[in-house]
Amino acid sequence: MWLNCDMGESFGAWKMGMDEAVMPFIDQANIACGFHASDPLIMQKTVRLALQHDVMIGAHPSYPDLVGFGRRSMSCTPAEITAFIRYQYGALQAIARAEGGKVAYVKPHGALHNDMMKDEKVLRAVMAALATEPEPLPLMIMTTADNSNVKALAAEYGVTLWLEAFADRGYDAEGYLMSRSLPNAVHHDVDTIVRQALTLARGESILASSGNPIKLDAVTLCVHGDNPESIRAVQAIREGIEALTTAK
Amino acid sequence: MWLNCDMGESFGAWKMGMDEAVMPFIDQANIACGFHASDPLIMQKTVRLALQHDVMIGAHPSYPDLVGFGRRSMSCTPAEITAFIRYQYGALQAIARAEGGKVAYVKPHGALHNDMMKDEKVLRAVMAALATEPEPLPLMIMTTADNSNVKALAAEYGVTLWLEAFADRGYDAEGYLMSRSLPNAVHHDVDTIVRQALTLARGESILASSGNPIKLDAVTLCVHGDNPESIRAVQAIREGIEALTTAK
Amino acid sequence: MWLNCDMGESFGAWKMGMDEAVMPFIDQANIACGFHASDPLIMQKTVRLALQHDVMIGAHPSYPDLVGFGRRSMSCTPAEITAFIRYQYGALQAIARAEGGKVAYVKPHGALHNDMMKDEKVLRAVMAALATEPEPLPLMIMTTADNSNVKALAAEYGVTLWLEAFADRGYDAEGYLMSRSLPNAVHHDVDTIVRQALTLARGESILASSGNPIKLDAVTLCVHGDNPESIRAVQAIREGIEALTTAK
Amino acid sequence: MWLNCDMGESFGAWKMGMDEAVMPFIDQANIACGFHASDPLIMQKTVRLALQHDVMIGAHPSYPDLVGFGRRSMSCTPAEITAFIRYQYGALQAIARAEGGKVAYVKPHGALHNDMMKDEKVLRAVMAALATEPEPLPLMIMTTADNSNVKALAAEYGVTLWLEAFADRGYDAEGYLMSRSLPNAVHHDVDTIVRQALTLARGESILASSGNPIKLDAVTLCVHGDNPESIRAVQAIREGIEALTTAK
Repeated sequence: MWLNCDMGESFGAWKMGMDEAVMPFIDQANIACGFHASDPLIMQKTVRLALQHDVMIGAHPSYPDLVGFGRRSMSCTPAEITAFIRYQYGALQAIARAEGGKVAYVKPHGALHNDMMKDEKVLRAVMAALATEPEPLPLMIMTTADNSNVKALAAEYGVTLWLEAFADRGYDAEGYLMSRSLPNAVHHDVDTIVRQALTLARGESILASSGNPIKLDAVTLCVHGDNPESIRAVQAIREGIEALTTAK
Repeated sequence: MWLNCDMGESFGAWKMGMDEAVMPFIDQANIACGFHASDPLIMQKTVRLALQHDVMIGAHPSYPDLVGFGRRSMSCTPAEITAFIRYQYGALQAIARAEGGKVAYVKPHGALHNDMMKDEKVLRAVMAALATEPEPLPLMIMTTADNSNVKALAAEYGVTLWLEAFADRGYDAEGYLMSRSLPNAVHHDVDTIVRQALTLARGESILASSGNPIKLDAVTLCVHGDNPESIRAVQAIREGIEALTTAK
Repeated sequence: MWLNCDMGESFGAWKMGMDEAVMPFIDQANIACGFHASDPLIMQKTVRLALQHDVMIGAHPSYPDLVGFGRRSMSCTPAEITAFIRYQYGALQAIARAEGGKVAYVKPHGALHNDMMKDEKVLRAVMAALATEPEPLPLMIMTTADNSNVKALAAEYGVTLWLEAFADRGYDAEGYLMSRSLPNAVHHDVDTIVRQALTLARGESILASSGNPIKLDAVTLCVHGDNPESIRAVQAIREGIEALTTAK
Repeated sequence: MWLNCDMGESFGAWKMGMDEAVMPFIDQANIACGFHASDPLIMQKTVRLALQHDVMIGAHPSYPDLVGFGRRSMSCTPAEITAFIRYQYGALQAIARAEGGKVAYVKPHGALHNDMMKDEKVLRAVMAALATEPEPLPLMIMTTADNSNVKALAAEYGVTLWLEAFADRGYDAEGYLMSRSLPNAVHHDVDTIVRQALTLARGESILASSGNPIKLDAVTLCVHGDNPESIRAVQAIREGIEALTTAK
């Protein structure tokens, strides 16, 4: 089980995230590409940090909405979405290549990720953007209880899926993240987070909000590097997963 | 002698340039990359048009200044310049690759081009951006009477130079474009323009504003697709150059 | 019956609209405020042109979406909408005041206008933005067959409504603009446009797409200054309305 | 002697500055207007905070350079500068008015401030922007040893000057801030800062880097709210100045 984290979310003079502190513990860095956060210099710095820690570089494209941090749904056409995703990962590719790295995958950000989960037209537009690379870029996307439609589409476009789960979020019976407005939607206790991470890593079922067990197919866990607490959780998850791997 | 033209300078709902009309007559399309003009969808459309006419695709990066069309000098650091040039040509590379094309060269736009001509730190920052590609990208840059410094720098960075001249502009004794505020700085007569184009294409000297002959080393001529008159001039230059080539 | 027209929709180096040609025939200029089009210099130029022709100055605020020309719905919060509307009309007020003019009303643009028509939360956010001016700014908004809800809200906020109709668009039975995908949704014939303008100006019913007569309450007609044809239509409407007024 | 501080420099999801902590100790809040920092919602929040603490609201306009935080000089024309300053303070005026406040003065930010100090064309463009208000807005500008030129221009435009000095910066013999690259250019010790603040408040000379005493004409001191140390310094200056006033 990989650990992935949103990185490079500073912008110009503004700092966000504790990238240096969390990078040593993760496998995949989802790097913002300038549409919701980051700028060319921050992208370069983040790429260097990832390479230093042997972390995979992922593009984290977004709707063009800097002031809204890419969290606002925008009614863009599929053609626009395909074009701006290529624009963003291409920009990161050139910056990564100059540092001796490469973009290994793409994970859409914020509202674009949500829209892709709900609207097949958006998902197709995203996949179309990845499929035309000489070696199609893998798509990192949130898992649910039933990924059959997403898998069928991915097969159609020749795109590899990297399904992602959360260790610190509650799930409903369909395997969607519980709304943050509900109780127990977000786990704050490190032990609970690590326990859910290891359950997912062992491929076992977790308990949905309905009380029923739910099986989540995932190869990567989304972790957070926002504050010291979240970084302690990431470190604990990393250690737990390594113990698991060694034990096998 | 190639003909190059700035292309893809529309933005969102705004149209600029007669790209469809001029593309059939040129060899190299300098495509804006979103910092002074263009957006991902316009870049894609322009790439397709270039490929259709077998025209080389060039990245036309700029300072980040959409409202000023990249015409305003900005005091950016060399590190910023290197990073934002990679960002821009990388974005175009991904869009070009998806259409079966590739970025063949880079020509800095507007104030960035001017600053690169005047300030070695800026020129080094530009070359550093191109030099790290697996195959360093050629740099299209305005020629002057003495290109020895630029050539020495290009050799240092392993970057190929594509020197560019203008058929419709007067030159001073040092081989710099005459200021537009001077008389005869811009040729409007098509015959004069074609005559200067062919003189340059034959590798012969033109007359500088000082009255002295001046030799301009150039492999490409910058032409314009703004209006019907300029397109007539491009067509006439194209025909003249082809006649020249055939005559050889 | 007033005539209003979207104006000042150029941006930086890009030109849009024939403002000089249409300004002499209209009563109200809806001036873009930099979020979907325009910039401070273009706003100033447009204000001067309006004052020269004794045309009322209106602010034409939008979602922050330059590349999408404000045509894409964005999921902004009511607080964000209220704040960015004040920001935009305030910017125009200072520019207008410097030229001896003032902002007489506000007409939301594009997707923001559409969202305001469909979503009471958005409409309230817009009205809240206008209500806090020392003299609340009138709101220009599309009329429908039943404006009672809008009128009730306007009364609650102390905002004057300036209801607007279109001379060149077909209406459905509820008084909404017919979708552009339907036949007869847009009138192109100048005679038809002028006839509908005068019918509306006389306060008479027009024929809805259902075939039934429909009464549209309106004090202003939205006209267009995009191209020579549309300007001929505006001039004809203006002459028709003046004849009507003189005849009374 | 007033204390002024740059405020509202967050942007969208990014936070900058400890506005809540420093607001109680200052007299004048220089509020960013969206061109180098801030957005409509942050402007509104900052205005409310200022009004709550009875602090004067100032507009802090900048070159249009968000990613560069307005710190990069841009070659804008005087007409552009005049227009974008009006745009920015106008936006803040509408937001302030909605909260029951008003814009009391304007202090140009960053590179625009520096350029205004060095280039009379820029300074004239700034003054022209302020002079057209019904009651011309005062200009907050850095003092030097000789303000006669600035004062003459201000008189010409009918603009009141609010000269500003720094408590935490060393000055050269001409009364300009010492370059940050020089030793003793920035005072870090709170006692030194408070001492310089009180010397300036008493209207006495400070020691320039040349070793000579220098008299700085100023009505306001620029203080900083970036971190806990700077806020402790502001509080100490405030207490020192109040003791001074009481003692009189």
